[in-house]
Amino acid sequence: MGKEEIREKVGWAAGMFGIERLLDRKPRQLSGGERQRVALARAMVREPSVFLLDEPLSNLDAILRASAREELRQFQKRVGVTTIYVTHDQVEAMGLGDRIVVMNKGKIQQVGTPLEIYHWPADTFVATFVGSPPMNLLGEDDILTGFRPETFLPVELVNGGDGAITYPFEVTWTEYLGAERLVYGNVGEKSHAMHVVSRLPGSMSLPFETGRTYTFGVSRDNLRFFDSKSGLRTDRSPA
Amino acid sequence: MGKEEIREKVGWAAGMFGIERLLDRKPRQLSGGERQRVALARAMVREPSVFLLDEPLSNLDAILRASAREELRQFQKRVGVTTIYVTHDQVEAMGLGDRIVVMNKGKIQQVGTPLEIYHWPADTFVATFVGSPPMNLLGEDDILTGFRPETFLPVELVNGGDGAITYPFEVTWTEYLGAERLVYGNVGEKSHAMHVVSRLPGSMSLPFETGRTYTFGVSRDNLRFFDSKSGLRTDRSPA
Repeated sequence: MGKEEIREKVGWAAGMFGIERLLDRKPRQLSGGERQRVALARAMVREPSVFLLDEPLSNLDAILRASAREELRQFQKRVGVTTIYVTHDQVEAMGLGDRIVVMNKGKIQQVGTPLEIYHWPADTFVATFVGSPPMNLLGEDDILTGFRPETFLPVELVNGGDGAITYPFEVTWTEYLGAERLVYGNVGEKSHAMHVVSRLPGSMSLPFETGRTYTFGVSRDNLRFFDSKSGLRTDRSPA
Repeated sequence: MGKEEIREKVGWAAGMFGIERLLDRKPRQLSGGERQRVALARAMVREPSVFLLDEPLSNLDAILRASAREELRQFQKRVGVTTIYVTHDQVEAMGLGDRIVVMNKGKIQQVGTPLEIYHWPADTFVATFVGSPPMNLLGEDDILTGFRPETFLPVELVNGGDGAITYPFEVTWTEYLGAERLVYGNVGEKSHAMHVVSRLPGSMSLPFETGRTYTFGVSRDNLRFFDSKSGLRTDRSPA
């Protein structure tokens, strides 16, 4: 590559990340976010056929991380280069990934779109690793019944569809988080009560008193079943 | 305190945290979560009149953090000791706090219940610091109009109340996060388009195409106004 060609390429990559005005600065004169953009632009100049990004946003604080995520997404879309992105941050994985590979101790647990991973977890590991709070799991003989907190609702709010399954739900605690409200409690007999969580919109001002029992339900469409021994999802439902 | 009395107190504090079986272990034989319980139990024995907890959960991973948060909450409720809890984690602050003090560079920005902080932020700092994604802010002359992403909805879903305000919303990107879907886009003329976000339930399968414009709205109850110079919340609305 001639000097002229290099200059042109650097200009193009700098333009891509809006860092033209940083080109004459020393690294220590750059903020964390700026350094990251410079690093990505340097990688771009080499015209790689794949990007491998390993926790690229982990050093940024929560607010910077959200805007950097959006920037990365736009960049990836613009250059159209296949990107393998390693992260522990679920929001990054769900929000950026076309496909997610969920790994546990070096082993692949599931490969799928964000929607598949979230709604059709291959096993109890994925079901409880993805989602915050995780999927509720109730033990019944050799089958576990799972449902996401946002599908476990006061029975009058459950979209019947082809029938709903109901539970007496003893509320132990409610947590108001602004956009949403988490209602924690138990279902089942005292002797083997199981802890479950319901996730409701924060705007819903239903009064749940600690210690009282309410009828909650889940639409059957939203139930998932797992083999209690292997943890794998199964089509078998409890007797 | 006599030896007997000390033994009794240690037993009581250990029982409080369920760590009786750990009493004969060395520190390095304890997990992170166990060490934390031991530290809290040690503090308890001294019968303090106030607990000061400084980022107590910051060393734990996301999953452990959720259960430790619940444990701390139960503990605090049981002992009933006033607790000052320093955190950068919004979910901890919202979920554990009776009152939240929002600080910025050593200065108090607002003191209030989680509900007040979230719905009636004192200024644009609190409005954008609390909530993820933050409150949307639209500039109009000397007043900024703010609304939370979950109140910015396709107009047919806006709970009219005493009238809704509508915006043409050009969608630039949608992000599926499982329990929710974030829809990013612009309102206003091309020349001074403003970036806003809508937060919809993940179960809502409305099709939003990138590049298309939809009519979105906010109920007037959900609008907040801020002085663009001082950033303070104001009762004045834009002309």
